[in-house]
Amino acid sequence: MLEPLSKISTNGKWLFLAYDHGFEHGPVDLPGRSLDPYYVLGVAEQAKYNAVILQKGTALRYYKGSQFEGKIPLIVKLNGKASIRQGEALSLQNCSVKFAKEVLGAVAIGYTIYLGSEHDPQMFAEFGRIVEEAHALKMGAIAWVYPRGAAVQDDASAEITAYAARIGMELGADMVKIKYSGTMESFHHAVAAAGETKVVLSGGVRAEQEEQFLRLVTSVMDAGAHGVAVGRNVWQAEDPIAVTKDLKDIVFSEVYEPDKK
Amino acid sequence: MLEPLSKISTNGKWLFLAYDHGFEHGPVDLPGRSLDPYYVLGVAEQAKYNAVILQKGTALRYYKGSQFEGKIPLIVKLNGKASIRQGEALSLQNCSVKFAKEVLGAVAIGYTIYLGSEHDPQMFAEFGRIVEEAHALKMGAIAWVYPRGAAVQDDASAEITAYAARIGMELGADMVKIKYSGTMESFHHAVAAAGETKVVLSGGVRAEQEEQFLRLVTSVMDAGAHGVAVGRNVWQAEDPIAVTKDLKDIVFSEVYEPDKK
Amino acid sequence: MLEPLSKISTNGKWLFLAYDHGFEHGPVDLPGRSLDPYYVLGVAEQAKYNAVILQKGTALRYYKGSQFEGKIPLIVKLNGKASIRQGEALSLQNCSVKFAKEVLGAVAIGYTIYLGSEHDPQMFAEFGRIVEEAHALKMGAIAWVYPRGAAVQDDASAEITAYAARIGMELGADMVKIKYSGTMESFHHAVAAAGETKVVLSGGVRAEQEEQFLRLVTSVMDAGAHGVAVGRNVWQAEDPIAVTKDLKDIVFSEVYEPDKK
Amino acid sequence: MLEPLSKISTNGKWLFLAYDHGFEHGPVDLPGRSLDPYYVLGVAEQAKYNAVILQKGTALRYYKGSQFEGKIPLIVKLNGKASIRQGEALSLQNCSVKFAKEVLGAVAIGYTIYLGSEHDPQMFAEFGRIVEEAHALKMGAIAWVYPRGAAVQDDASAEITAYAARIGMELGADMVKIKYSGTMESFHHAVAAAGETKVVLSGGVRAEQEEQFLRLVTSVMDAGAHGVAVGRNVWQAEDPIAVTKDLKDIVFSEVYEPDKK
Amino acid sequence: MLEPLSKISTNGKWLFLAYDHGFEHGPVDLPGRSLDPYYVLGVAEQAKYNAVILQKGTALRYYKGSQFEGKIPLIVKLNGKASIRQGEALSLQNCSVKFAKEVLGAVAIGYTIYLGSEHDPQMFAEFGRIVEEAHALKMGAIAWVYPRGAAVQDDASAEITAYAARIGMELGADMVKIKYSGTMESFHHAVAAAGETKVVLSGGVRAEQEEQFLRLVTSVMDAGAHGVAVGRNVWQAEDPIAVTKDLKDIVFSEVYEPDKK
Repeated sequence: MLEPLSKISTNGKWLFLAYDHGFEHGPVDLPGRSLDPYYVLGVAEQAKYNAVILQKGTALRYYKGSQFEGKIPLIVKLNGKASIRQGEALSLQNCSVKFAKEVLGAVAIGYTIYLGSEHDPQMFAEFGRIVEEAHALKMGAIAWVYPRGAAVQDDASAEITAYAARIGMELGADMVKIKYSGTMESFHHAVAAAGETKVVLSGGVRAEQEEQFLRLVTSVMDAGAHGVAVGRNVWQAEDPIAVTKDLKDIVFSEVYEPDKK
Repeated sequence: MLEPLSKISTNGKWLFLAYDHGFEHGPVDLPGRSLDPYYVLGVAEQAKYNAVILQKGTALRYYKGSQFEGKIPLIVKLNGKASIRQGEALSLQNCSVKFAKEVLGAVAIGYTIYLGSEHDPQMFAEFGRIVEEAHALKMGAIAWVYPRGAAVQDDASAEITAYAARIGMELGADMVKIKYSGTMESFHHAVAAAGETKVVLSGGVRAEQEEQFLRLVTSVMDAGAHGVAVGRNVWQAEDPIAVTKDLKDIVFSEVYEPDKK
Repeated sequence: MLEPLSKISTNGKWLFLAYDHGFEHGPVDLPGRSLDPYYVLGVAEQAKYNAVILQKGTALRYYKGSQFEGKIPLIVKLNGKASIRQGEALSLQNCSVKFAKEVLGAVAIGYTIYLGSEHDPQMFAEFGRIVEEAHALKMGAIAWVYPRGAAVQDDASAEITAYAARIGMELGADMVKIKYSGTMESFHHAVAAAGETKVVLSGGVRAEQEEQFLRLVTSVMDAGAHGVAVGRNVWQAEDPIAVTKDLKDIVFSEVYEPDKK
Repeated sequence: MLEPLSKISTNGKWLFLAYDHGFEHGPVDLPGRSLDPYYVLGVAEQAKYNAVILQKGTALRYYKGSQFEGKIPLIVKLNGKASIRQGEALSLQNCSVKFAKEVLGAVAIGYTIYLGSEHDPQMFAEFGRIVEEAHALKMGAIAWVYPRGAAVQDDASAEITAYAARIGMELGADMVKIKYSGTMESFHHAVAAAGETKVVLSGGVRAEQEEQFLRLVTSVMDAGAHGVAVGRNVWQAEDPIAVTKDLKDIVFSEVYEPDKK
Repeated sequence: MLEPLSKISTNGKWLFLAYDHGFEHGPVDLPGRSLDPYYVLGVAEQAKYNAVILQKGTALRYYKGSQFEGKIPLIVKLNGKASIRQGEALSLQNCSVKFAKEVLGAVAIGYTIYLGSEHDPQMFAEFGRIVEEAHALKMGAIAWVYPRGAAVQDDASAEITAYAARIGMELGADMVKIKYSGTMESFHHAVAAAGETKVVLSGGVRAEQEEQFLRLVTSVMDAGAHGVAVGRNVWQAEDPIAVTKDLKDIVFSEVYEPDKK
């Protein structure tokens, strides 16, 4: 069910503003004005992101019925994991697909799979069911696939990054969000492994210098990625609008033509 | 679904009388007349609390069909954990949302999440479903979020308190009940982290001196909290009505204006 | 839903004949004629117990369609645990509430909760659901609450006995069945902790001398208990009818007036 | 729901041909022609067993729609455990009651409970539900109850054999299949413990000499058992028809009259 | 429900092209052009395989609505396990039977059971339910049965291979896919153990020389197998069409007549 995602793309590319860090990492990740969801939604609207990514509660309190509803397309993250608990990673669904669609007005849902965790069978199964429910409601289904756990030796290796991308495709995700693998070549391999499933980069922690982050984004777009989900590198920046403009220049540019159709 | 909670507020603030200690800690927490739910309900009615918080059974035996039904708004705690079992904290739903609404007449439900417990994924998922059911029945959903478990180093740190407040918001709670973080500044940060989700203080163990407790309440209200859920500090007191009067003076006073809208 | 239980009481007191020992402990607990459920049902009928307590299968084979059906009120125990397995106690539902009512003709159901077991969250949740189902079918719900597990230091202490009684009330039980705490005073505290939820004593292992057991029963009735569920002390006795007569004299006597309304 | 089982009995006794060994132990238990289900079904038909006991798949491929359908009554084993996995025994339902009845045409279902296993609570619960479903469809429910696990000291003791038999009755089984306890006296006690629930012997491994096995069967029938489920001792024999004739002489003889009604 | 599978057979034999390796092992197993599902589907169509075996997502993106839909029969693998996680093997359903049929257009479903794993009871139960659902929708049900886990001493022994084949039959699979046992004789025993359930070889890792693989296939077909599911040995080959031709010569030849009907 790629259609609802295609509709909100810019020439087949996507720039998402992700803001589920309050659940995943806590307010420590949300310094200054970034603690306020209204601020981040304002950035998303003003800079015309293709969509904003929120947890259920944030969508319920700040998007639904607010000035932003319908102005920025919404993607709801259906699961979340807090960073305090140790042990093998497990993130379970806390929002139904139906609620995301009918109450919150989302065009797509997101779900994180910790590939390699002792609990990954449970997350594969849960995401599999979610894909079917989302498609039945004509929503896109996006898999965050992150290698994690004692069994993972190098969570940014070329091999495991391509595996993460592929797992997303094999499970039926319309789009897969993965982390950077360190080089353009290896990321290109991951994009190829995902094939018809679109690949977006997970922006990750804030780069020390914006230039660094832009080079990384250039690398992944050159690698054939279909977009980027940014967060901390934007709303922690002094001028998020300016950063977004730089990002759009890279993500939406028609310069690069991936060698695969 | 904040409306049913707003309706029972006093100028947007809430003073709740919590009385689920018989489940959580046992009768050891209920000395003297406080063992008798009728006594506590009498205090709640006489002192006009915004709501009383009970476990299902207490509501069934002492509220439903008694002189108190409809006189004091009711919040039903849907889960509970006894203090004897050791191991990582797990508190599961023992009362359905429908039962709380239709049989017991509750305006809102409460649910405890032990943030950091090995089992927190299960509680996140269960509360997520409960929020949807409660909102479908036009009930408020309140999350008790308490850091707990071997992975928690300091359960009253500024950082974890703000995290607890934020998790409540991200999961869709209308209100989050958290513990005191030690200072007004840190509690203010937690209130800001919860944003549009209202924050109420969990009163905690009985202070040695009432004055101590009132200073703590003043601190959290100055921090921008929206209320307090008291228990032992009231019904273990010699004159609960007098204590309540003092609390109301603080909680409902219009003196403090939080700097955030 | 106390009504169906009240109807079968004798002046607000109950004397139950429990006979689920074949499941819980095995035939080793059923010497001589007590191995035969017909014998025990005969005792129950002849001595006019307020109800007999059976596991599903015993009710299905010996009560339903037999001469005893409808002659003695029936309580069906919905869960059971065999004594062989070690590890933390877990007893799960093996009979539906609907089956107990519609097929077996029970007026109430019983369910054991091992308070303090690693698995008590699961039993709290299961009993919580059962209470709602039972009340919807206008049946009484009785909780057996027994402290058990590595976390329990003294399973007969005053404190834990009162906690057990209270947990039953907080979970919505109409009646709670607990073990003797050793003294009248401490048992009185447990009865007070249960409040509007009726308390019946769990008779326990056979006393060496009947007199001993009668003193114990006198103590709990003096403590304000609402009855006793006896088993081994009756059907292992030489003259169960005579023992029952002695028990009735104590349980149904109007001598003791508990100081709480 | 003993009726469908009574209908297929021979004077209130049962001789079953069990053939689920391919699941439980693998082909190692099925030497020579016994590997072929058609051979075993042929024996069952020719020797007129009261029923044949098969796993779902065997019934689906070899009974349903074959020459044997309707010629030999069918009992479907609803769960199965392979012998490779170590750890505490757990056997879960792999065939629904409805499928056994409507697709396969079974008159009764079987289910194994490993009494004493760490997982026995789960099997008690699953069998409890199955009994209700079977009875609703007017099918018999047979419990295989086998002591198993680290907590079991002697799985053939008189005490545990009687416990196994009793658990079957208490859970609502129409019939319980147990192992031999070593002596007629102890098996008699097990039969008495099961009471109105019929007891059949589980034939067990092939005896070195047929005579040995016949003595064992004589012992259990003398003990008051209601039949025998044989397998290896028949279809591993050179002349299964002859062995069956000998078994019938013992099982269906009217010589022994148990002293209990 | 063998019919839909029979319809797509070649004279009662099957040659399947399996391509779920991206899920099971990752892109490391998909060198060169084999990374692209379109390439593999092209091979399947051109070489006229009896069916292609895909995970849900691959079927959704590359088969459904593509030029291949309806041209090659489709089998959907309903579960999958990634190779990173260690610990006892567990593969859970990520695609519903209904989705496989109605959305993807599959004629049959596949499901892997790790025989001997600590979790095999869960997979037996899940596959049991799936068989019933598949048959209700008139789809074939194929079990991949692979010995795996600490309890498995030799996963290619004659005994365990026959056990794997038999378990598939006993659970109701129409077809079972197993690994090579090393010799024709032992594989013949496995085929006999599966009986009416068809046996196909799991092709396994790429042989160093094609000749080697062809000898293996000859061996299993001589052993009475009903086909082969190939993957790496075909789409990793330089000329997959030529390899397929060689395979067909062996698999579809009428030379060998198994001695059992």
